[in-house]
Amino acid sequence: MKKLQGIYEHAAQMTAKGKVATYIPALATANPDAFAVSLVSMEDKIDFGECTQLFTLQSVVKVFSFMVAMNHHGIEEILRYVDVEPTGDSFDSIVRLESHNNKPFNPMINAGAITVASLLPGETMYEKVKSVTLFLEQIIGKKVHIDNEVYLSEYHAADYNRAIAYILQANGFLKSNVEEALQVYLQLCSISVNVEDLAKMALYFATNGEKSTATCSKEVIHIAKALMFTCGMYNASGKFAAFIGLPAKSGVSGAIIAVVKNGAIEHLQGPIGIGIYGPAIDQVGNSVAGIAFLTQLSKEFDLFCL
Amino acid sequence: MKKLQGIYEHAAQMTAKGKVATYIPALATANPDAFAVSLVSMEDKIDFGECTQLFTLQSVVKVFSFMVAMNHHGIEEILRYVDVEPTGDSFDSIVRLESHNNKPFNPMINAGAITVASLLPGETMYEKVKSVTLFLEQIIGKKVHIDNEVYLSEYHAADYNRAIAYILQANGFLKSNVEEALQVYLQLCSISVNVEDLAKMALYFATNGEKSTATCSKEVIHIAKALMFTCGMYNASGKFAAFIGLPAKSGVSGAIIAVVKNGAIEHLQGPIGIGIYGPAIDQVGNSVAGIAFLTQLSKEFDLFCL
Amino acid sequence: MKKLQGIYEHAAQMTAKGKVATYIPALATANPDAFAVSLVSMEDKIDFGECTQLFTLQSVVKVFSFMVAMNHHGIEEILRYVDVEPTGDSFDSIVRLESHNNKPFNPMINAGAITVASLLPGETMYEKVKSVTLFLEQIIGKKVHIDNEVYLSEYHAADYNRAIAYILQANGFLKSNVEEALQVYLQLCSISVNVEDLAKMALYFATNGEKSTATCSKEVIHIAKALMFTCGMYNASGKFAAFIGLPAKSGVSGAIIAVVKNGAIEHLQGPIGIGIYGPAIDQVGNSVAGIAFLTQLSKEFDLFCL
Amino acid sequence: MKKLQGIYEHAAQMTAKGKVATYIPALATANPDAFAVSLVSMEDKIDFGECTQLFTLQSVVKVFSFMVAMNHHGIEEILRYVDVEPTGDSFDSIVRLESHNNKPFNPMINAGAITVASLLPGETMYEKVKSVTLFLEQIIGKKVHIDNEVYLSEYHAADYNRAIAYILQANGFLKSNVEEALQVYLQLCSISVNVEDLAKMALYFATNGEKSTATCSKEVIHIAKALMFTCGMYNASGKFAAFIGLPAKSGVSGAIIAVVKNGAIEHLQGPIGIGIYGPAIDQVGNSVAGIAFLTQLSKEFDLFCL
Repeated sequence: MKKLQGIYEHAAQMTAKGKVATYIPALATANPDAFAVSLVSMEDKIDFGECTQLFTLQSVVKVFSFMVAMNHHGIEEILRYVDVEPTGDSFDSIVRLESHNNKPFNPMINAGAITVASLLPGETMYEKVKSVTLFLEQIIGKKVHIDNEVYLSEYHAADYNRAIAYILQANGFLKSNVEEALQVYLQLCSISVNVEDLAKMALYFATNGEKSTATCSKEVIHIAKALMFTCGMYNASGKFAAFIGLPAKSGVSGAIIAVVKNGAIEHLQGPIGIGIYGPAIDQVGNSVAGIAFLTQLSKEFDLFCL
Repeated sequence: MKKLQGIYEHAAQMTAKGKVATYIPALATANPDAFAVSLVSMEDKIDFGECTQLFTLQSVVKVFSFMVAMNHHGIEEILRYVDVEPTGDSFDSIVRLESHNNKPFNPMINAGAITVASLLPGETMYEKVKSVTLFLEQIIGKKVHIDNEVYLSEYHAADYNRAIAYILQANGFLKSNVEEALQVYLQLCSISVNVEDLAKMALYFATNGEKSTATCSKEVIHIAKALMFTCGMYNASGKFAAFIGLPAKSGVSGAIIAVVKNGAIEHLQGPIGIGIYGPAIDQVGNSVAGIAFLTQLSKEFDLFCL
Repeated sequence: MKKLQGIYEHAAQMTAKGKVATYIPALATANPDAFAVSLVSMEDKIDFGECTQLFTLQSVVKVFSFMVAMNHHGIEEILRYVDVEPTGDSFDSIVRLESHNNKPFNPMINAGAITVASLLPGETMYEKVKSVTLFLEQIIGKKVHIDNEVYLSEYHAADYNRAIAYILQANGFLKSNVEEALQVYLQLCSISVNVEDLAKMALYFATNGEKSTATCSKEVIHIAKALMFTCGMYNASGKFAAFIGLPAKSGVSGAIIAVVKNGAIEHLQGPIGIGIYGPAIDQVGNSVAGIAFLTQLSKEFDLFCL
Repeated sequence: MKKLQGIYEHAAQMTAKGKVATYIPALATANPDAFAVSLVSMEDKIDFGECTQLFTLQSVVKVFSFMVAMNHHGIEEILRYVDVEPTGDSFDSIVRLESHNNKPFNPMINAGAITVASLLPGETMYEKVKSVTLFLEQIIGKKVHIDNEVYLSEYHAADYNRAIAYILQANGFLKSNVEEALQVYLQLCSISVNVEDLAKMALYFATNGEKSTATCSKEVIHIAKALMFTCGMYNASGKFAAFIGLPAKSGVSGAIIAVVKNGAIEHLQGPIGIGIYGPAIDQVGNSVAGIAFLTQLSKEFDLFCL
């Protein structure tokens, strides 16, 4: 445990190099020094830091809502609404939506995630949100809640996302109305979890969902992992793939999930899920301490997966 | 062998759905019906089609010249000249080079590859080209030659690449002069191989180069594999990752290398390298039959690597 | 009169080369063969075609709402919200709004016009709209009405404009809320006039507003005429300037106003205002017959103004 | 003369707000405090500052080479190679050339001017350059020379223009080879004149060339003036049109020509040509003192031309 402890402690010192997200007031109140990590295998787990601290999923949820939509409509149908190609544009870019009346590049950017929100199963906003929280609850094994303060805060700073939604609607890539897609999307971003929950979410991918009650086809899990690998870490996805080499997804709350298909980290063996919370983020939106932790972890325990 | 044979035969019928690249005369003469596949493990190999047919590497070489430059200058120095992020722009795009005076997004697009060509070790063009052919010869275990007809044909259709090179020079991302970088780049694209050579090149990655005389640090091999996974298959890289899930690189000649870190395909076991030649390519530039073959192969033999 | 009659008749035959705007149902019902022209000097007027036919101003109103806003806030203040530079982008482009968080290029594109709508004097939507209709009524000398069918039709096809408005709001270039700016903008587009009204609106510029009860500073009239000359005719503004050479503004309803500062057209002398209605428009959005008419008119009566 | 003298002196104090162009060494040596103005009518002239100082035309020449090409090939043929639409992009932008394989937006941006250089009459570079210098010599009434130091300096900093030329060639918008078009273009930019020469060049437009031995069709002169009005002053063309309202063209050397079709400035009457040299330029590339002079001049003598 000494090696892992050392990696955690070294990474924890990096929080000072990042800044808490401030584009919505509710995120700005996070403790910039917070840094918690949870690693879980099928049999065991290791925790560092304050593991009961709740925070919101933000972009991490994009992977799961995409899976729920795919499970419901089938892969082919969803691909008519959103592609799975990485893009060098920033997560809230509109340019590509305009230039060719094209569908969103992938469900990890806001445009794609808003389209996916409109495709979720259910007649009402409540049902659509429920379809994702239910899926997450089956994965985590406990109830999850929406942080209403964060949701309202996001809702009041949603001009840009609303603009994206209207362009999607104009181009025929929204299956609900704008208001519904937007509120569902923002509610999903505001789902509240802790790092142990994140670790279980990551473990779900590591095991291809095989022992979970949360049913999902293997094809869909593969697509989700490929998306995490190629575009899960915002505009640093390529560097994350090159230097860490694990499927992972981050959110501006400082959350990260990272997937180890088959590894050995201290006494943990086999599929391992990693959950991280470090709200001090870098310029592209990733937890500074989280990236530092995963970089050294991957190197020390030889986790590069390709 | 029947299953693999069936996959090959089914894919071979797909050649009619693609077209031979015509932007340079020398590529346009390729036989559109040609389709050869080679699979090689450490102990054995399996071939389909005409495996002695020579063709040029085209963009496949970009991975190797990047590795040679990294080996020579070190990872950090090369990253000052070229990033490793995927981009949704087409391979010959100039837009990003202009808008922010930025370095090339990655070495798989032409801009990045021309920058890399300028960074190769050696005083002369000859030495720079030699540095890559030597590396390939150590990997393949035999001499390789440059197809001079293809080279001259490319050289006479190089307006766009030359424009890219001048912008790179203006922005300080070229270490040689334009003419040298361009000629080195185009000569490397014109290196001539057969599918068995490709398979060996792929196997090099599958084994992390461990038993090869071609020395390369593990870190550089990891970066190269990550680049192949995130942006090796032109603008279909995301779909390739999602539905096939292997590090791979394609060229407009119809060449593909695909890397199986640890698999079981018929009697082949462990690390497996796959080489493909199918000059009938789709709209983004990938061999139609090659993609069909790899799609079914990955599914039937469970090769998805994440 | 024979020469002018001939020019009108020749131009009238061009209507078949254009198409009525169809992006909103209410415009699509216009008679594609309609073509009316009105020329008015301080003393006299000449009409061709059905001059009592009502139609909506569409983009023609942009010049006038810009003038009302300038008159109210002063030139300097308005220039903080919208520039006066031509752009090669299409009238509904978003790209520039995103790429540099920049203010709209000019008030003739939708982004600029929506910003201007938010800057109109008045506390309520009604008052803002009224500020422009009042100005127009003083210029024309009669009441104008809003075509409610067209307004509602536009309102229900406003996704793209709404997206633009949200981006403007996000970037701080909207002085009212989105809904108000948008509704005011669309109501102004739906103001209903006939060609004689248009001719009087054009004459207002030709006389620099000197004898009108509609007060406006000469500086503001100059800016408005410069805008018409550099970007009044959508993406054909440059060709209109080069081959016709008059300040002019068009709308997708097929309306055009064109300003002759000092000319001699048949028995009309001095400042002349030209109003045109020809709903069959070309690809960039200008009345086909209108362009044909003005091209020959400018040549025959030597109206090129520079 | 007191009023004009005052305007000159006030403007002369503005030189400190600009900076001499430094992108090529030969321009960087200009005296930043220099400021000379020449006004010429058919009968008389007024000079301020050091009027014998030579400087290079830079972008001012673009108008004249365009006219020579139009005179030789006819308007229609030239418009197949270059459009006459203003664009909000900077003068050396490549983006539009790439995105739609489109022809250059207008001959005032570098792309359009390089295309025009390739279209000049003559078999050799020498003859092509000669075709423009000859035209200028007929307008000015004396020999002009090319400043070889400036030319060589520009030639060695031409990466970006060379890139543009290669893209033009790739897209079929170059009628000579790249090297010839580029050298002709850069030689034309390096033509050396003084402010009195500039004033005569401006007067040529003011009189529509009617009394000059430099023959040019009225249509071509109109197109040239329209281009100056809509896009002659780089990315401040719209503001120049709105607040000064004269056809004009500037160069980064600090040169400006401005055209008064019919005015009264002190004892000068009728068509007046204005030449300005003030090498301290603003961020978009226009002489700071020149803009200040023309702004006040236009206001005081009521020169706004629309």
